[in-house]
Amino acid sequence: MNNIRGRFKKAAAQSVQTYTASVQYDWMLYPYDIAGSVAHARMLGKQGIIKPAEAKKIINALQQIQKEIASGKFVFNPELEDIHMNVEARLVEKIGDVGKKLHTARSRNDQVAVDVRLFVRDAITHTIVGIRYLQQALVQVATANKDVILPGYTHVQRAQPVLLAHHFLAYFEMLERDIARFEDAFARADVMPLGSGALAGVAYNIDRESVAKELGFSTVSKNSMDAVSDRDFILEFEAAASIFMMHISRLSEELVYWSSAEFDFIELDDAYATGSSIMPQKKNPDVAELARGKTGRVYGNLMALLTTMKGLPLAYNRDMQEDKEQLFDTVQTVFGTLDVFPGMLLTMKIKADKMKKAAGGGYLLATDIADYLVKNGESFRSAHEITGKLVNFAVKNGVGLDGLTLTAYKHFSPRFKRDVMNISVESSIAARDNIGGTTKKQVAKQLAAAAAKIKKALTES
Amino acid sequence: MNNIRGRFKKAAAQSVQTYTASVQYDWMLYPYDIAGSVAHARMLGKQGIIKPAEAKKIINALQQIQKEIASGKFVFNPELEDIHMNVEARLVEKIGDVGKKLHTARSRNDQVAVDVRLFVRDAITHTIVGIRYLQQALVQVATANKDVILPGYTHVQRAQPVLLAHHFLAYFEMLERDIARFEDAFARADVMPLGSGALAGVAYNIDRESVAKELGFSTVSKNSMDAVSDRDFILEFEAAASIFMMHISRLSEELVYWSSAEFDFIELDDAYATGSSIMPQKKNPDVAELARGKTGRVYGNLMALLTTMKGLPLAYNRDMQEDKEQLFDTVQTVFGTLDVFPGMLLTMKIKADKMKKAAGGGYLLATDIADYLVKNGESFRSAHEITGKLVNFAVKNGVGLDGLTLTAYKHFSPRFKRDVMNISVESSIAARDNIGGTTKKQVAKQLAAAAAKIKKALTES
Amino acid sequence: MNNIRGRFKKAAAQSVQTYTASVQYDWMLYPYDIAGSVAHARMLGKQGIIKPAEAKKIINALQQIQKEIASGKFVFNPELEDIHMNVEARLVEKIGDVGKKLHTARSRNDQVAVDVRLFVRDAITHTIVGIRYLQQALVQVATANKDVILPGYTHVQRAQPVLLAHHFLAYFEMLERDIARFEDAFARADVMPLGSGALAGVAYNIDRESVAKELGFSTVSKNSMDAVSDRDFILEFEAAASIFMMHISRLSEELVYWSSAEFDFIELDDAYATGSSIMPQKKNPDVAELARGKTGRVYGNLMALLTTMKGLPLAYNRDMQEDKEQLFDTVQTVFGTLDVFPGMLLTMKIKADKMKKAAGGGYLLATDIADYLVKNGESFRSAHEITGKLVNFAVKNGVGLDGLTLTAYKHFSPRFKRDVMNISVESSIAARDNIGGTTKKQVAKQLAAAAAKIKKALTES
Amino acid sequence: MNNIRGRFKKAAAQSVQTYTASVQYDWMLYPYDIAGSVAHARMLGKQGIIKPAEAKKIINALQQIQKEIASGKFVFNPELEDIHMNVEARLVEKIGDVGKKLHTARSRNDQVAVDVRLFVRDAITHTIVGIRYLQQALVQVATANKDVILPGYTHVQRAQPVLLAHHFLAYFEMLERDIARFEDAFARADVMPLGSGALAGVAYNIDRESVAKELGFSTVSKNSMDAVSDRDFILEFEAAASIFMMHISRLSEELVYWSSAEFDFIELDDAYATGSSIMPQKKNPDVAELARGKTGRVYGNLMALLTTMKGLPLAYNRDMQEDKEQLFDTVQTVFGTLDVFPGMLLTMKIKADKMKKAAGGGYLLATDIADYLVKNGESFRSAHEITGKLVNFAVKNGVGLDGLTLTAYKHFSPRFKRDVMNISVESSIAARDNIGGTTKKQVAKQLAAAAAKIKKALTES
Repeated sequence: MNNIRGRFKKAAAQSVQTYTASVQYDWMLYPYDIAGSVAHARMLGKQGIIKPAEAKKIINALQQIQKEIASGKFVFNPELEDIHMNVEARLVEKIGDVGKKLHTARSRNDQVAVDVRLFVRDAITHTIVGIRYLQQALVQVATANKDVILPGYTHVQRAQPVLLAHHFLAYFEMLERDIARFEDAFARADVMPLGSGALAGVAYNIDRESVAKELGFSTVSKNSMDAVSDRDFILEFEAAASIFMMHISRLSEELVYWSSAEFDFIELDDAYATGSSIMPQKKNPDVAELARGKTGRVYGNLMALLTTMKGLPLAYNRDMQEDKEQLFDTVQTVFGTLDVFPGMLLTMKIKADKMKKAAGGGYLLATDIADYLVKNGESFRSAHEITGKLVNFAVKNGVGLDGLTLTAYKHFSPRFKRDVMNISVESSIAARDNIGGTTKKQVAKQLAAAAAKIKKALTES
Repeated sequence: MNNIRGRFKKAAAQSVQTYTASVQYDWMLYPYDIAGSVAHARMLGKQGIIKPAEAKKIINALQQIQKEIASGKFVFNPELEDIHMNVEARLVEKIGDVGKKLHTARSRNDQVAVDVRLFVRDAITHTIVGIRYLQQALVQVATANKDVILPGYTHVQRAQPVLLAHHFLAYFEMLERDIARFEDAFARADVMPLGSGALAGVAYNIDRESVAKELGFSTVSKNSMDAVSDRDFILEFEAAASIFMMHISRLSEELVYWSSAEFDFIELDDAYATGSSIMPQKKNPDVAELARGKTGRVYGNLMALLTTMKGLPLAYNRDMQEDKEQLFDTVQTVFGTLDVFPGMLLTMKIKADKMKKAAGGGYLLATDIADYLVKNGESFRSAHEITGKLVNFAVKNGVGLDGLTLTAYKHFSPRFKRDVMNISVESSIAARDNIGGTTKKQVAKQLAAAAAKIKKALTES
Repeated sequence: MNNIRGRFKKAAAQSVQTYTASVQYDWMLYPYDIAGSVAHARMLGKQGIIKPAEAKKIINALQQIQKEIASGKFVFNPELEDIHMNVEARLVEKIGDVGKKLHTARSRNDQVAVDVRLFVRDAITHTIVGIRYLQQALVQVATANKDVILPGYTHVQRAQPVLLAHHFLAYFEMLERDIARFEDAFARADVMPLGSGALAGVAYNIDRESVAKELGFSTVSKNSMDAVSDRDFILEFEAAASIFMMHISRLSEELVYWSSAEFDFIELDDAYATGSSIMPQKKNPDVAELARGKTGRVYGNLMALLTTMKGLPLAYNRDMQEDKEQLFDTVQTVFGTLDVFPGMLLTMKIKADKMKKAAGGGYLLATDIADYLVKNGESFRSAHEITGKLVNFAVKNGVGLDGLTLTAYKHFSPRFKRDVMNISVESSIAARDNIGGTTKKQVAKQLAAAAAKIKKALTES
Repeated sequence: MNNIRGRFKKAAAQSVQTYTASVQYDWMLYPYDIAGSVAHARMLGKQGIIKPAEAKKIINALQQIQKEIASGKFVFNPELEDIHMNVEARLVEKIGDVGKKLHTARSRNDQVAVDVRLFVRDAITHTIVGIRYLQQALVQVATANKDVILPGYTHVQRAQPVLLAHHFLAYFEMLERDIARFEDAFARADVMPLGSGALAGVAYNIDRESVAKELGFSTVSKNSMDAVSDRDFILEFEAAASIFMMHISRLSEELVYWSSAEFDFIELDDAYATGSSIMPQKKNPDVAELARGKTGRVYGNLMALLTTMKGLPLAYNRDMQEDKEQLFDTVQTVFGTLDVFPGMLLTMKIKADKMKKAAGGGYLLATDIADYLVKNGESFRSAHEITGKLVNFAVKNGVGLDGLTLTAYKHFSPRFKRDVMNISVESSIAARDNIGGTTKKQVAKQLAAAAAKIKKALTES
């Protein structure tokens, strides 16, 4: 970093270099850094701030440097601290003093801001596509098992029978909101900060909008002090990613328990399970467990940056360098999770018979019995109370509701008639025929809408 | 809770009642609970699920109960656990068995979901208006001090002169993004869950869309299992609130330091400062400190719900009851902060002379000198290096850059001519004439746009 | 929106008072505040800083005020901001100008520090006793069911048979570490800060050690600036509470799943379960769910204070007022949890037959078979591989390991002899006879040690 | 991982391998993994579980492997998933089938537990030594500047004069508590888990205590199910590290502001400051800013593991693999911070004249004036009020308290005599002569005690 230490008499202490260097992780930004520099150089040339021929020379060299990095030939120097200085130093090495003109009308503060914004935009785009594929896997499994019935649970207690497709569509909806949140985050990341300089703008006749256009940004930032110290777009990405991982953790919890001997609802494919170093019989749902566990790191990354940003005065402070590693970690975690989940879902074996068996018998139709009474004139609260007593009686006699005779029913209310015996898992499901309800018709409608939405999105993207 | 303990032989243990009761805080939901019940009852009547006359009776009684609660006459009973059961018990007390019909085709799971969604929608609407007033205060102070110059800082080091209005507009931009985030959160809260029942939909011929319309929701939920266990809209509100409080903490940090003897840039009005119990001379910026401190609780509330939701299987689990207290606390903190900040800003004394003095002298114009060299043919990196040496020379001689003679300048580069002596705080500011830059023209444009935006928003709301 | 526009225009002072007042929650500190003031006054009298008669008058009045508050007669005035000023104002009201002498040689900064330290010491003491009772319940249940066998799980897969008592003793160990952590936190809370004044010490001939002695503190603080701005002892309490609640969340998760129809290992007593508003058959483990959910708030409270304290310069800053509400909330949550858990554990029905059945059959003895091979000369890794193939064969044939014939065994390795057929759930358990292992002997030893430890602790406390 | 996939028909999917592999970070555990294996093998040999000659062969090969890794020659294979399997595979490669016996009477669950405990013990030991050096730096700077006076601040308002040494000793005290917390965490990490097997203990005649002795552990774990799923010791380390970093963030905040033109109390050495890419005059306190910023990541890491552990049933779950990366990151952050801080403190220039000037003049002696009145018979509250009026009068007249005449004083109270004019910065400091107060005598005593404590600790360690 000799070139920016004009004022300093001594080199930084070695431990300081280690502490402050970022190139060991921010090298990942190189395609964005170079794209930003290319657009900046082109604009400088067009505006006559540097000569057009100089701009061309810089751009060509930058494109060569990009290839050098992509091919693994580039040697990063930690003494040059970050990706920006590494690239610039190589530029000067390649084309001499002309390279020293690239940083005209720019500061590292607006340069890093544009790099990270480009990175986040890309991360969001990929995340959304990945979520669409995960939704697609859910819809495929749901469609392939559209008649499968399992118990719906509340409090991990069997509550009412539902279609498995309905159950999976609940996750479709969660992911739908995740996509919407990522799209909203995109809009706020999609703002071009170059031209903000160190903090006050730059003293050159630049054309910010042409740079924005070349880089595909929808708009330019409106306040230079804000632009160089704004990390909202990272926080917002991390918040959206936290909620997404929360959803994944819920699905994972179910996959873990459904794989247990106790539930025995699914069997994960061998490719998505692992063994034990000591217990040969084990087939563990490690992917789901890890995903559930990784929720923690994504939450932690959000909390880290929220903490870092708390109480920082305007404008740029070095604390903000801490925005990147956790961001990269969150992106990697989200991508990795989206890489494994569709395959895991598509290859798992659904044990429809076990699910069906769990949904039958027992007391899952109690609500239907209460509803029966209501439809035959009882008020809901009284119907609820009567059914409670009925359940109690059945429990005491060691039978499910389907083990009670009509006489027994009548003992609890004269409103019970023969047709109460027709209440079944199937009738229970068929009864819930409202938008968002669990009937085959409603579920088919939602499945079709989901499939159409996914198809449209994946075709367009 | 006798009425829903049909199955149970014993009353809940006293400690259990204390542990599980929520009415001590969820009573705050009463206007939303009653609005939801009124819409539900009206729909039940219209659909013939209960008789229209019954619906009317229920609605009248609910409206009376609302007045009882609003006037403080209602006695909440913790044994009835939550706001829903308290209201329903009173309903039955007032109108007898007809009241027991209200809960037909409904569950506490979808009932609480609609209550909290109504609450969050209101909270967002009020938050946005409050932020508009805070923006208005910033714009007013900026406009009233539009020619005031102060040092722009990076790393808490004086960097380049900026307009105070430019500085405050940076906060305007942050708040603008906050509003956009809250609006996006509103859209996802604005979904009507009633009709989802306990988890699977309800077995009655309900009309969900009419209920949505009466309650002002844009749409109805598409999956009942998701609808009763979705808390995304709370998390999203809390994430937006966390980022908002982070912005507030940054502004607060500045107000605290600017009030110090060392900066001495502002003096807070007595109404917004407090004294010391032991040091009579102290005038402390307590409001700004508390706001900065309260950032912690808002972050903590977000973290709390993210943790609570992690790993919960479908559908409703009692853990989710923990969504409300922290939400209420965040709302109260945001409202309280928005209550005090505009007044604090509008009444503070700006010490323009102190700011101006800090912006002059010293080395804040070094960038302008480097830019001067660039415009006279030097490459940026060389110009930067030369200026670094110049600053070093000035420091050694105990003068600012304005204390150097032209001869001294020329000693460092032959490119320096007489006109380098014209570089001033004013010329520095005037030079940064790009969108988002700190010139008077650019700032005036942004101020005008900001004022127009606020006026439009406050007129419409 | 008019109603909130009006609010934002309200007089400044009122909103500031609302924002900054703390008496609505810090009134809870009154017994500590008064104890601290009594000790301070007595010392002032002894040292001749005020007259002994004055000290006596003050002390008497303070003791009366304590009774007024305890009996609910005291009227708190929010304009007096906090508990300290409320008490002092009442003191002056009662005894006139003498009351104005109490605050001699003291500041609110060291006063609040001593109050909160006294509170935290008490909270820790009560927490530890509560945990002892929870341990006692675990040991009682374990002892009463000392021969009960259930599957030990890893990855929620049945792994190896264990004693239920062994399973519960795992929680005993976690709680043992919790106690140790709380004890360590106590030691750091047990430091007397009075005499630190506002930040620099006080200009009077005080006797700090006598005050410490009267208040039961082990030592006095060594640096006044640290003493008034140290909140470590709260953070440490909250960190210990977070780890404790994590343990509770693990136990809760098990209670929730064990109560499910799928596991069916336990039945919670009616007094510790709740019903459903719509599904009469449900018996929900709400207490365990709520405890698991409340883990979030305790984590959030820790995060809140860590955030608040980040980056605060010396010495006291008003941000620190935010230390109390979350502390109180954490204490209340921990106490409430400790109130309900012992009863819930002691009253639950253990379904030993279901547990035993789950432990038998299947493949839980695979490790024992691998160990059999090792003891008969196979290397562990090869034994592991052979057993894996054996399990695979059994799975394919739809039997458990107990369904294989000796011939089948021999097919996989010649090392299998007749005695392999003796491997059983009981032999598996009996084999793990190391310290901390699951044999009856080892478990009995640990149970006895646990019981003795609890008895000693509860006798002494 | 072929060797533990006996049961599986397919290899894990590539994305699964990427998702579940940990060797890219857990290779760092190799010295601990090998030490654990050496102790385990020696014990197996001694107990006759394997032959002594086999044990010797294994131990020799392990020691060679350690050298291979240390010298960078070892090739890690991600397909072998983690450090344990990489080492074991190499062992078998080197010594054939004998190597397959190492894992006898052991599981990865207890193996990883012992590795991480050894790692944490080492991390704590190094952290404590590092903190001692930081304390030493504080004491050296304090001692070298023992007569320097600066304003003590509350609310970032000048409050009372204090000695700079007193100010730095506040940080000494914080660090003293940090050390105590790390020591307490050490005690709970210092427990040997090997012998717990997968979860239930092992079916061999092992000698756990000899293994503990060889590895330097104080004790062995008491419950196998707890031992394999206990991550408290990591959480506790991370909680202690979070509080430590909070202290560092406070010190950093002060270094940042003290380096500003406004405070101008210190100048950091060039080796500990960095320049600007665009503003040649800047000398930024980047190390302090980064340390303050890195507080976020350490908090985030704590929150990550707390989240991961929430709600996990017994015993081991794969989620727990997520314990390591954040732990390593926290350790690296703490070490890096301890590497740079002592040098930064020892080389910074203290501007004693600027500090002294800030402490004089103004109103910092107001408390002393109030105390003067108290000592001359006024009650404290009245003295406080009178002094408040006096300050107000001085402010209005544009002078400090030292600018008031005796007549002016007497105007506010007849108790003022000529000797009030003797109140000075020096007399103020001299007056606070209690334990922990800011007088030269008290501070010298604390400095001496601190120096002795550090010397003892660094001699012993």
